[in-house]
Order: sequence, then structure tokens, then C-alpha cells
Amino acid sequence: MSVSVQLENKTSEPVKASLQPLMDIVRQDLDSTNQIILDRMHSEVELIPTLARHLIAAGGKRLRPVLTLGSAKLCGYDGDRAQKLAACVEFIHTATLLHDDVVDESDLRRGNETANVLWGNQASVLVGDFLFSRSFQLMVEDGSLEVLRILSTASAVIAEGEVQQLMNVGDVNVTEENYLQVIASKTAALFAAACEVGAVVADRSPEEAAALRNYGNDLGIAFQLIDDALDYSAEQAALGKTIGDDFREGKVTLPILLAYQRGDADERAFWTRVIEAEQQDGDLDHAMTLLARHNALGDTFARARDYGNSAKKSLDIFPDSPVKAALIGAIDFAIERAY
Amino acid sequence: MSVSVQLENKTSEPVKASLQPLMDIVRQDLDSTNQIILDRMHSEVELIPTLARHLIAAGGKRLRPVLTLGSAKLCGYDGDRAQKLAACVEFIHTATLLHDDVVDESDLRRGNETANVLWGNQASVLVGDFLFSRSFQLMVEDGSLEVLRILSTASAVIAEGEVQQLMNVGDVNVTEENYLQVIASKTAALFAAACEVGAVVADRSPEEAAALRNYGNDLGIAFQLIDDALDYSAEQAALGKTIGDDFREGKVTLPILLAYQRGDADERAFWTRVIEAEQQDGDLDHAMTLLARHNALGDTFARARDYGNSAKKSLDIFPDSPVKAALIGAIDFAIERAY
Repeated sequence: MSVSVQLENKTSEPVKASLQPLMDIVRQDLDSTNQIILDRMHSEVELIPTLARHLIAAGGKRLRPVLTLGSAKLCGYDGDRAQKLAACVEFIHTATLLHDDVVDESDLRRGNETANVLWGNQASVLVGDFLFSRSFQLMVEDGSLEVLRILSTASAVIAEGEVQQLMNVGDVNVTEENYLQVIASKTAALFAAACEVGAVVADRSPEEAAALRNYGNDLGIAFQLIDDALDYSAEQAALGKTIGDDFREGKVTLPILLAYQRGDADERAFWTRVIEAEQQDGDLDHAMTLLARHNALGDTFARARDYGNSAKKSLDIFPDSPVKAALIGAIDFAIERAY
Repeated sequence: MSVSVQLENKTSEPVKASLQPLMDIVRQDLDSTNQIILDRMHSEVELIPTLARHLIAAGGKRLRPVLTLGSAKLCGYDGDRAQKLAACVEFIHTATLLHDDVVDESDLRRGNETANVLWGNQASVLVGDFLFSRSFQLMVEDGSLEVLRILSTASAVIAEGEVQQLMNVGDVNVTEENYLQVIASKTAALFAAACEVGAVVADRSPEEAAALRNYGNDLGIAFQLIDDALDYSAEQAALGKTIGDDFREGKVTLPILLAYQRGDADERAFWTRVIEAEQQDGDLDHAMTLLARHNALGDTFARARDYGNSAKKSLDIFPDSPVKAALIGAIDFAIERAY
């Protein structure tokens, strides 16, 4: 319990402050992106915009499109293509969220009932398919085969990561390597692609595109590590999510991996039972106690900071500028959510 | 009951004969397409090829890729791009089948248990996403923005059709216009795109591309009309499908639309109850009796023949040739399934 107390009361202020410079820099472009999103999620089939609006228009930070816009700005791009491509990135992200709702049977996201709960599995799948297709239509309108290559590859990798995660459920012997591969695929691939697209649209060198890709990748891994830790720590209200979702689903994330590795025979028997067999009342509390005993959350945060530092280093080839500082701020934002 | 007796014993021979010339003409290309499909559905994540193979390698007629290959041949195309693009078309089709399994909760497809029953909703959704993404990766490799436009648009339209169909479930007052819009979107859009791609890859005129697109569209509508009729008529063994799936799901297809329109007050009350409220033992038998009484299946077949004739007409701008005759044979195949 100490863990959750330790982490609360610290979510709102520093979080906003660290992301604010980037949000300010891309503000106008983001307004255009939001307008494109609203315009292009339209369909004569009413349920599509209704359901899409439930996720998209509900807000959220638009972190991925903001990274596309910020990366383009870092590369000196000043046209309007990035706005449209940022919308493509958000459509892909939203499609994966909709399909995730089917996958995770999670009850709450962003504090609302999920689309799945409100409209059913079938609608979530199909509206996700629509947004995914619409994203590719927008990319075709833009006309860059390189962007199409980057985002179609990211989409395939995301699906691979999600399937691998599904195969790992209920297996307490998942390796750290396998876990890292999953989060690199399911989460970091889209962050990496979102940032790389910013360099491509600005027609910058392969080295700069690779640097932004690496920045996005490491930021994405850090982001997911924090997410996986928060599932055992923050208040539902702060997160808009039920605590212990991963635990109840038998999803083996880094905190559990670490606690399992460091646990004695009794503790390992506990983890094996709750992950591979069945759970009882009080198991989540006991799991939190074990995570605290082995500093599993603290070490997960530390790992996230390592990836954050690596993300920062990737930006070294770019000269210092307000945009660069703002992109570094986005790393801080991803990590500070934990404190 | 008379309907189902009337239709059995007639499925195999004429069906094969009418499609055989087209299969023969594209045989070599189709072998290459099949190899591309097998190669490119590979992933390090084992469940992906396992599950994809369940649908893809199980065979099926490959009707859509065959149409791409045949359309390209009709346009005099002799390169190998069509083989890869035919694989893209099949990947999109397979992705929609996987997502349909989630949608329809159908128990049988092609006589096997569905992927959904074997591996669950989540795997069906995610492997569908993978194949969909992989399809776009292949199109990017091919490098034609026009092909990307055609198939991304078709994918969006398919999703719209499926969502509209979902909204129509349980509503006995669905109009014929709405029903036709649904099948044009969910089925005919991919047939149309598959054929149009054949003209695009051969770099033919917009008129020829439009002609093949119309051919595919009308063939697709005919195909779906027959499918919807067969759900009330053929033997499960012959179809690889449970009879009455649509009925049990409350899906209002043309046969029911016609029977409802032509029914008296008692009959309409029956349809309203079984579609909008609840079903009891014996309802399917009674539904079949009402369909027979109003010749609802016969008129659905007739409608399919009309679309088939329209599909044939679209090919008028092409000079007579064995390929053209074979493409006309594919229309006959789609329709003769009913007899």
C-alpha cells in the first residue's frame, strides 16, 4: 500500500509543466490536426463517428501526433503535411485502442466506459478497422511512399507485439528480453514511427530520421515501462484506469518479472498461482506488498529513466533549440507520470 | 424444406466447370501468389502464421486474387506485379474474415472451426490487423500510389458496410436500398477493387479501369446475394456453414426483406418477433416455409442474375478473348452456386 501512497499527490503539476513547452510550440499545428481528425473520422454510417468520437474527441494528450509535429518542427519543417500525417498517427493509435478494448476486456479507459462496453466487441473491431483504413487513405493523399512504408511497418509490428503479449499471458516465466520485445513492438514502434515521419516530411538526412526514430523508440519504451508500473501504483481516479488490470489479466510485466526473479520459493509459488492458475481476494494486496519488498516498481522506474536518457542522447545531433528542449521535456513528462 | 431439397445435389459439377477456364488461365500466376502469401504471412510470433494458415492455407477458391490476376491478363499485362497485388487483396479478405469471426460468432467456416473458436476473439482481431498491415507493406513495396488509393478506400468502405450491417441487426424494417448499400460495401467493394487493380497494373485507360471496377462490383453483389440466399437453403456440408446463421443473428437479408414485404399481418408479426425479439425451436423451419411461399429465394437468385448480366455488359468494351470468356465464367460460377 505504501507504494500507492508514495506515488499519489504528485501527478498533475510537474507532468503538465514538462510537456507544456512542446504543446505550446505545436499548438497551431495541433489545432489543424484536431480539425483533420474530426473531419476525416466522418462517415455516413453514424455509429462510426459516434464511437470514434468517444475515444478521439474525448481528448487525451495526443502525445503521438504532438511528437510528429514537434519532430517536424525540430527539422525546420514549416508546411502543412505534418498536420495531416499527425492525424494518421492518431488514427492508427485510436484503432489499436479500440482493438485493445476487445483484447483487454478492460473496464475503464480515460475514466469513461470503453467503447467496447458501450457498443460491443464487434463495433470496436470494425470502427478500428475504419480508422486504420482511413489513416492509409490520408497517407495516400499525402503521397509519400516513405511515410506509407514507415507507418504500415509500424502497424504490422504493433500487431506482432500484441499477439506476442497475448501468448505471454498466464506464463510467469516470460523473459525480460521477451517482455522488452513486446513493449518495443506494441508501444514504441508507433512512437518511433511518429517521430521519424517528422524528419521524412522535412526531407532530412537518413541519420536525422534515424535519430528521431531512436528518440521515439526509447521514449515509447520508457512510456510503457511507466504505464506498467502505474498499473500497480496510482489511484484509479488519477489514471482513469482500474488498478491491477494487468494483474487480473495474468499479464506479466516488468514489475512482476523482477519480483518473481527476486522472490523466494513461497513468493514464486504465489506468483505462479496468481498468474498461471487462479486468483483470490487479497491477492492484489499481497502482490503489491511483494513488489514493494523487492523495489520492483522503483527499479522499473529506474529502467524507464535509462531509456529516457538514451532518448535524450539521440537528439544530440540536433543543435540546441527551444524545440529540442521541448522534445526533451516530453521525455520528462513520460517518466514524471510515475512520481 | 422443399427449397433446400431443390438446391442440393447440384453444387459441385457446374460450379467447377464455369470457373475452371479462369483458374486455368491464371494457374501459374496464382501459384506465385500463393507462394507470396505463404512467405509474407510469416512472423517470428508463431501464433500469427499458425492462425493465418488456418484460414489462408486451408485453401478456398482465392476468388478475389484470381480476379485480380484475370483482370490483369485481360488488360494484356504480363509482368509479376499482379501476383503480389493479388496477395494483398487476399490478405485484406482474410483480415476481414478474421474480424468477421469476432463479429458473427459463427461456428463454422469452410467446414473447420473458426480461428475465433480455436484461439479466441483477441487473436482473431490481432492477426487480422497483422495481415491488413502486411498487405499495405506489400503495396508500398510495389510502389503504386493508385493501387494504395484503391485498396485503402476499399478497406474503409468494407468497414463502413460491416458497421452498417451491425446497426441493421434486429431491425426488420431495413430497406432494400440500405441492404444493397451494405452488401455493396462489405462485399462488392473488394471485388471491384481487386478487378480495378488488374487494369491499373497494366496501365490501361480510366475507362477500362472503370469497366473492370463495375464488373467486379456487380459480380460481388451477385456473389453476396447468392450467399445470403444459400444461408437458407444449401446443406451445411456443401457450404461448410451452419444453415440459418443469418437468421439466428437477426440479420435481415434480401430473402427476409422480400418475405416480410409480401407477408400478411400474421407473417409480419412472426418476422418481427424472430428478428427483433426472441426465437424459439421451429422458427427457422417456419421461416423457410414463408420464404418458399413468397418465392423469396427464387427472387433473390433472379436479382443476382440481373447483377451478373450487368457485370457481363461491363466487359463489352474489351474485345472477345479466352480471358474475357473466362471472366464471364466467373460470373456464372458465383451465381450457379445457387443451383
